[in-house]
Amino acid sequence: MQKTNNKEEILNLLKMVKSGTISPEDAVLHLQIAPFKDLGVANIDYHRGLRQGCGEIIFGQGKTQEQILDIALNMLNNNLANIIITRVSQKTADFLAKQIDIEYYQIAKIAIVKRIKNIKLLGNIVIASGGTSDIPVCEEAAITAEMLGSNVMRIYDVGVAGIHRLLSKYEILTKARVIIAVAGMEGALASVVGGLVSCPIIAVPTSVGYGANFKGLSALLAMLNSCANGISVVNIDNGFGAGFVANRINKMESIK
Amino acid sequence: MQKTNNKEEILNLLKMVKSGTISPEDAVLHLQIAPFKDLGVANIDYHRGLRQGCGEIIFGQGKTQEQILDIALNMLNNNLANIIITRVSQKTADFLAKQIDIEYYQIAKIAIVKRIKNIKLLGNIVIASGGTSDIPVCEEAAITAEMLGSNVMRIYDVGVAGIHRLLSKYEILTKARVIIAVAGMEGALASVVGGLVSCPIIAVPTSVGYGANFKGLSALLAMLNSCANGISVVNIDNGFGAGFVANRINKMESIK
Amino acid sequence: MQKTNNKEEILNLLKMVKSGTISPEDAVLHLQIAPFKDLGVANIDYHRGLRQGCGEIIFGQGKTQEQILDIALNMLNNNLANIIITRVSQKTADFLAKQIDIEYYQIAKIAIVKRIKNIKLLGNIVIASGGTSDIPVCEEAAITAEMLGSNVMRIYDVGVAGIHRLLSKYEILTKARVIIAVAGMEGALASVVGGLVSCPIIAVPTSVGYGANFKGLSALLAMLNSCANGISVVNIDNGFGAGFVANRINKMESIK
Amino acid sequence: MQKTNNKEEILNLLKMVKSGTISPEDAVLHLQIAPFKDLGVANIDYHRGLRQGCGEIIFGQGKTQEQILDIALNMLNNNLANIIITRVSQKTADFLAKQIDIEYYQIAKIAIVKRIKNIKLLGNIVIASGGTSDIPVCEEAAITAEMLGSNVMRIYDVGVAGIHRLLSKYEILTKARVIIAVAGMEGALASVVGGLVSCPIIAVPTSVGYGANFKGLSALLAMLNSCANGISVVNIDNGFGAGFVANRINKMESIK
Amino acid sequence: MQKTNNKEEILNLLKMVKSGTISPEDAVLHLQIAPFKDLGVANIDYHRGLRQGCGEIIFGQGKTQEQILDIALNMLNNNLANIIITRVSQKTADFLAKQIDIEYYQIAKIAIVKRIKNIKLLGNIVIASGGTSDIPVCEEAAITAEMLGSNVMRIYDVGVAGIHRLLSKYEILTKARVIIAVAGMEGALASVVGGLVSCPIIAVPTSVGYGANFKGLSALLAMLNSCANGISVVNIDNGFGAGFVANRINKMESIK
Amino acid sequence: MQKTNNKEEILNLLKMVKSGTISPEDAVLHLQIAPFKDLGVANIDYHRGLRQGCGEIIFGQGKTQEQILDIALNMLNNNLANIIITRVSQKTADFLAKQIDIEYYQIAKIAIVKRIKNIKLLGNIVIASGGTSDIPVCEEAAITAEMLGSNVMRIYDVGVAGIHRLLSKYEILTKARVIIAVAGMEGALASVVGGLVSCPIIAVPTSVGYGANFKGLSALLAMLNSCANGISVVNIDNGFGAGFVANRINKMESIK
Amino acid sequence: MQKTNNKEEILNLLKMVKSGTISPEDAVLHLQIAPFKDLGVANIDYHRGLRQGCGEIIFGQGKTQEQILDIALNMLNNNLANIIITRVSQKTADFLAKQIDIEYYQIAKIAIVKRIKNIKLLGNIVIASGGTSDIPVCEEAAITAEMLGSNVMRIYDVGVAGIHRLLSKYEILTKARVIIAVAGMEGALASVVGGLVSCPIIAVPTSVGYGANFKGLSALLAMLNSCANGISVVNIDNGFGAGFVANRINKMESIK
Amino acid sequence: MQKTNNKEEILNLLKMVKSGTISPEDAVLHLQIAPFKDLGVANIDYHRGLRQGCGEIIFGQGKTQEQILDIALNMLNNNLANIIITRVSQKTADFLAKQIDIEYYQIAKIAIVKRIKNIKLLGNIVIASGGTSDIPVCEEAAITAEMLGSNVMRIYDVGVAGIHRLLSKYEILTKARVIIAVAGMEGALASVVGGLVSCPIIAVPTSVGYGANFKGLSALLAMLNSCANGISVVNIDNGFGAGFVANRINKMESIK
Repeated sequence: MQKTNNKEEILNLLKMVKSGTISPEDAVLHLQIAPFKDLGVANIDYHRGLRQGCGEIIFGQGKTQEQILDIALNMLNNNLANIIITRVSQKTADFLAKQIDIEYYQIAKIAIVKRIKNIKLLGNIVIASGGTSDIPVCEEAAITAEMLGSNVMRIYDVGVAGIHRLLSKYEILTKARVIIAVAGMEGALASVVGGLVSCPIIAVPTSVGYGANFKGLSALLAMLNSCANGISVVNIDNGFGAGFVANRINKMESIK
Repeated sequence: MQKTNNKEEILNLLKMVKSGTISPEDAVLHLQIAPFKDLGVANIDYHRGLRQGCGEIIFGQGKTQEQILDIALNMLNNNLANIIITRVSQKTADFLAKQIDIEYYQIAKIAIVKRIKNIKLLGNIVIASGGTSDIPVCEEAAITAEMLGSNVMRIYDVGVAGIHRLLSKYEILTKARVIIAVAGMEGALASVVGGLVSCPIIAVPTSVGYGANFKGLSALLAMLNSCANGISVVNIDNGFGAGFVANRINKMESIK
Repeated sequence: MQKTNNKEEILNLLKMVKSGTISPEDAVLHLQIAPFKDLGVANIDYHRGLRQGCGEIIFGQGKTQEQILDIALNMLNNNLANIIITRVSQKTADFLAKQIDIEYYQIAKIAIVKRIKNIKLLGNIVIASGGTSDIPVCEEAAITAEMLGSNVMRIYDVGVAGIHRLLSKYEILTKARVIIAVAGMEGALASVVGGLVSCPIIAVPTSVGYGANFKGLSALLAMLNSCANGISVVNIDNGFGAGFVANRINKMESIK
Repeated sequence: MQKTNNKEEILNLLKMVKSGTISPEDAVLHLQIAPFKDLGVANIDYHRGLRQGCGEIIFGQGKTQEQILDIALNMLNNNLANIIITRVSQKTADFLAKQIDIEYYQIAKIAIVKRIKNIKLLGNIVIASGGTSDIPVCEEAAITAEMLGSNVMRIYDVGVAGIHRLLSKYEILTKARVIIAVAGMEGALASVVGGLVSCPIIAVPTSVGYGANFKGLSALLAMLNSCANGISVVNIDNGFGAGFVANRINKMESIK
Repeated sequence: MQKTNNKEEILNLLKMVKSGTISPEDAVLHLQIAPFKDLGVANIDYHRGLRQGCGEIIFGQGKTQEQILDIALNMLNNNLANIIITRVSQKTADFLAKQIDIEYYQIAKIAIVKRIKNIKLLGNIVIASGGTSDIPVCEEAAITAEMLGSNVMRIYDVGVAGIHRLLSKYEILTKARVIIAVAGMEGALASVVGGLVSCPIIAVPTSVGYGANFKGLSALLAMLNSCANGISVVNIDNGFGAGFVANRINKMESIK
Repeated sequence: MQKTNNKEEILNLLKMVKSGTISPEDAVLHLQIAPFKDLGVANIDYHRGLRQGCGEIIFGQGKTQEQILDIALNMLNNNLANIIITRVSQKTADFLAKQIDIEYYQIAKIAIVKRIKNIKLLGNIVIASGGTSDIPVCEEAAITAEMLGSNVMRIYDVGVAGIHRLLSKYEILTKARVIIAVAGMEGALASVVGGLVSCPIIAVPTSVGYGANFKGLSALLAMLNSCANGISVVNIDNGFGAGFVANRINKMESIK
Repeated sequence: MQKTNNKEEILNLLKMVKSGTISPEDAVLHLQIAPFKDLGVANIDYHRGLRQGCGEIIFGQGKTQEQILDIALNMLNNNLANIIITRVSQKTADFLAKQIDIEYYQIAKIAIVKRIKNIKLLGNIVIASGGTSDIPVCEEAAITAEMLGSNVMRIYDVGVAGIHRLLSKYEILTKARVIIAVAGMEGALASVVGGLVSCPIIAVPTSVGYGANFKGLSALLAMLNSCANGISVVNIDNGFGAGFVANRINKMESIK
Repeated sequence: MQKTNNKEEILNLLKMVKSGTISPEDAVLHLQIAPFKDLGVANIDYHRGLRQGCGEIIFGQGKTQEQILDIALNMLNNNLANIIITRVSQKTADFLAKQIDIEYYQIAKIAIVKRIKNIKLLGNIVIASGGTSDIPVCEEAAITAEMLGSNVMRIYDVGVAGIHRLLSKYEILTKARVIIAVAGMEGALASVVGGLVSCPIIAVPTSVGYGANFKGLSALLAMLNSCANGISVVNIDNGFGAGFVANRINKMESIK
């Protein structure tokens, strides 16, 4: 069973104050009892789903495989499913697979715990990459968006040095609700795409390149300084962040 | 009269080839005749409205007041209206006002040429600022979004050093379709807002601060590295860019 | 009359819920009514005094003189006094002086609104500077700490290039409860002082110098990398921040 | 037996001059005989305890395991105990453990030589971390402060992306004498904590993150530029430095 | 058989429109069918030869050996030859050599697939290096230029610290049509060469050096700021880029 | 009369040694008598024309107007003409015009002393700019190349945000012998042009933009990291350098 | 009368202890009475001459003209002469000239108070500059060295773009005891000089240049990374520092 | 037999011209035959000893062990001895030791080929280090200076955090002819030493430290910005460079 909403709890608390079940002084303390589980090293936030429209996501980098397992187990115990763990090495994935039900996407380095099949994918996010080497970042974005319920269309290796490759995908681009433009080196893809379409564009600079790319700084600065409108930028190599925000925009409903 | 669409022109050209009105060889050349006006120093792009859902916007910074006037006059001659000119000093605004019909927003440093009144403002963009000194950037975003047809709600000076100021606006924040978080110094506002809401957030670092803020670098890096999800970032002090992309997201229609 | 504490207000609210004076639903809304005054461009935080042990301080840089005046007037209307305004130019000070009661410290660029005389200065903060050019930053720290109620001892121009100048002040240094070490250029003063004393040291890098000091970066990095223990660092030229935190440490009470 | 104070030695020397036991010329030389042991590669500073209120601490990074052992042995021969060695790898700890009595804290990477049990822990330092990955830096701070005699309270994974997690610890925060705020990525934790409390805060940026965090630069700049008052900053990942200075502040006595 | 030109294809398409073989609407779609092969992860650009005067070049860095093989095989299937793969490790070269006909240049780290022997080398490119450690970058440039059909003259280890070593090559330098100046550290070679000759100079900064060379930044900035005329610069360690552009300049024909 | 070549002078000197007219020892000294005029503050290099195929060019920035005049007068006395002075303010131009025959190009900020009319312009350099604000840098390049004898074609404001503006100039681009691509902000123009043509491209980053463009760094890094081939880069805003090197390449003769 | 040495004072103090004239306790205090004058804002160091072989030098930048005057007057009252004040604007020089006897060097921006004429200039320092614009920095070095008693030979505008200009000065260079190499832009002069001579070279990077010279960073990095031996570097534009250290080296005596 | 001087060769050449033994034209070519051995990958400079007062030194870093061996063998064949090879790993040293006579200094990572024993060490260079971790850099300086014939005095671990450790070495410092101050972290050692002595000081920043030391940048900037006079700086970790230039200064002879 999926965890249900407990929005009324706060209201209940106040009603209990009104009814005298608890004193106002105690209520102040209770208000501070956070709806999350304190594991000592991690506070799992079960309300985030309510506040932000998705479940907890585990950022795997910098955590030991044991820490990741603990957090995942606790979430499973709370009936969560489709839990996304990013930046998971093959080795950690193997470790986790021995204990819990995961599906591992090797290129994206994403593990999904207790993956829910048959989620309906909605809308249309297009992910365009400058080169072949940018694909791992693209896939991190793609898997993230798909797990959150968005349709994803991939058009890879359409960098601006062969502008006709990109133009040949013009129709695909114009049909997107959101575009994620992923590029390293000079990061010009975002600007060119930006000049072609009228949907929001999330630009992801990658650390692909060498020398004066300074580990992605060149693409980052280029994307921040784009002369095209409608572009906003996430951190270098942050495929997850791009997939997450693109999914949000993709799911927007019409103004009532 | 507002300029109408000429989408069929390309199709017409091909039909003229078919009918023999022009030769295929000539058609190749005609295909290259761009639908914009070449002023020598500026190529005004009358198709952008079609491609991108808005008219040409003039980035005033770095242009002489004569160049700005020339471009604006040419656009007026093409029956454009509600033309946004950003980064316009009071002095340039005064110069323009003598020749053409403009409305000048002093704090935002935006001039609107032949402003269309009574545009219906739709949806709901909330612009939150960390401090009082960030207001010029906020207003650049606000006026931009309003001119493009979005409703804007301003909540200024709600920086994280007094978190209750921000929390007191919680209800406003949760009702936004898009939030623009504007902050200088440590730029933490974006992260805190990011933890509270489930709509897309556009973060705008400002150059407000001194010393090791390195002209906005501190806020820029902070926003790019936000631990909160759903945030993407525009250039330092780029209120216009934020307002533009927020308007696009605000106007999203439901997935069909 | 100085503004008194309203800590019980929250408790009162809950009691009103209990007594049925207001509904729990309304109480939720009331809880969000922040105890600050929203001036549109600034939210003055009257609770900060309660939370942080001092009144609101106005960071003057980046605000217009009219904005500063508005904020100050509002505070005066709320019976606040001894209001510190930092980074105030002589010109702004003159403007303010025509309307409200201020005392202006020219070197520190600090204006005090409705200064309370005869505040008892407690404890002992020593402010040491590397050179004569660092004095404005020192004075910003000194006036801040004095306005907040700390005794300040100044020992200026004791940079490490003439180590005996510093050593001659050894007795003064060892009697300090807190030391503020202010230096530009190579910022070595903090390290040397750090090796001599056993009290906490706040290091303030200044932008004094030229060339490869990169506007204070050299001193900042040096202070952050000090091989001496007991040193923490504030922003470049941030005399106010140093004075503020030094005052807090100076006022520490014994462990009970 | 613990080494006792030899403060009078200098006075004795001057008395010996007075009594003619040694000539003034010789006294000048004797004054230069430093109260430390020159091991050739390291000068152990036995007076630091007098000057700074703690024993010598060994910074393990960059030293060979043999150098560390030599220094530790020399200190043991001088009857020192509770010697803190920071940045010690498991491998070096194993090497040391074969020769001398050490206690090793694996997460903190700290080894304590001849640890004194039953030290009374005083006061109250709260260490808050933004995320799980910041814990090694937190523990370096925590063990340092504990070894120097301070009580430490840990509240980990309370980053600002879920502000309620932090607010639920509000009571703990307000009871602290000093707070150490440890965070990577955008480093916003320090600012939010800074707005909530009235005690001194030591901010520790960590290198946790990726891409445009530039190995901790993002958090460092954010913390230096905090809009909250009462914050000072130590070097990136410098848990030791934070624990050391927090202990000093925690042990402050009341103004007499 | 080498792939022949299909320039007329576009013209043919328009003629088919004229003749009614296809409708104008279909032609619009056909125009977008790009003359490249979409492998999913890479779009091989078979028209580049037409547009740019050389065949596709594979940038090996950041690609898996399987991806490189796939791309090479596809190109071979399209009758391409003399395919340049740069940044190929010995290990990848060994892997490729088992499946396809390659020639591997170990110092240059370049593999040539189906190398065409007996290409006539034309003109005269001189490659000068500051030191012995710069040779791998030089060889990347040299092999690239040779594979594209240029004569290359190598003069290595002629750095400016022994200016007579360079001057002794004066005659060689003056006979060059293009010079590639490769240097790390302070990168002064380009400036000195620039003062001696009247041909275009391509400067290649290398990451050779240590400390404040910041991985090639010192040489890069020096070369960009050269006081000599006639110099343009490519990325740090970008021997390929220099060889490519030098070949283009070398092959220039006289103004008609 | 234009100064003629004195190449034989060195040979003459050696012949004088042979004939005994001067001693070998004196010849060594004579060899060191440089063929330039030492003005004390400037050494005018009259041989550069021989070595480098053009006359001396005066870099005006950082020189006083008196220094510029002195240098120019000395050159005029040596029968030089068509002397290019770059980075000359209107004020300095006015000063010079009172004393010597100059022609001043206000946008390019170039003054030509004793301009030779009717120079035949050869070949074909195309200068493309990303935006209107880049025009001063373009003109510096254009005037330089024209003064050195090259034909220049200007296509301004063809930035990548409206890619069709650039594509409409495709024919012009393909006919160029050399292209100078001038762009600020994200500097993507160079990459897109690089993908379209087969001639050498000189990329000029400009400081146009704001915020994270860091005075041209964004465009500079983007251009250095271009994924397109055939591009080399000059310093930020260095129109002169681009015009100079483009002229050299434009004037290349065929391989014999 | 010039101030004489008081080296024996310390010895005298100890003798007074011995004789009982003062108590040992008082002597400790007296030892701390520094031999400098505390002006409040500046501690003039009258012993520096003894310790360092020259009188106090006033760094004028960042000091008010009143502060400079006060310091100078105090020094005059202590019978000092030939006092060097660096970084003095013409305006400040005029102010000082009304009150005290100064000689002002406009290009060097140095004022000499009570200049001693007829100082014998010894040895041989050669100052070489890359260009005309570097001359102010050169003159700061030159006047400094001359005031301290060194012979200075100037060879200006001998940058490496015309290497023969430098080589023509070869004999001058080889006769130097110390060389100061001053250059902006790519700073290559130091390396080339370094390869020609066997004396110590002090390299001074200047901020001359534009764009990617980043205010002298390019020349600074180049000089630090010089492939030539025998070079050490001072701060950007630090002519004074170079002149000072060059004078020290120039005055070295033979090993006894 | 040590290689002897061939200074007269150039004079001889000119005399041969005079005597008619060779033609002037041939002499021009002969003048360009450099007095160094071209090994293809390295040009060994046998005249450097004449020009610079020492033999060729091999910078080992970035060269293969085979390249190093080739260069060393060639030098041995030219009767050179006492050849210094820097940055040599233990592994390379072992490789070399099998073929040629070397002495290896493990901490300094220097190998001496055919070391000349009994070289008389002259003068007095003092090398001071901030900490134990700086010793490898110190030893690189020390061995270099000793091999070049200078006396070296080492005083290690005298960093400024315990200023008395340094002051206790005051007498040693004052007796130095040159001081090399080696320090990482905040690099303050150079400034403090600079205030104590009157000899030239060579400052060597090291990469010792972590976090915001940015691999030696903190110490580098600190040393360049030293408020003390008489200091010049070499590259980060450049012990060799410091030892080389210190030896030159140490060997200075008196002004005649």
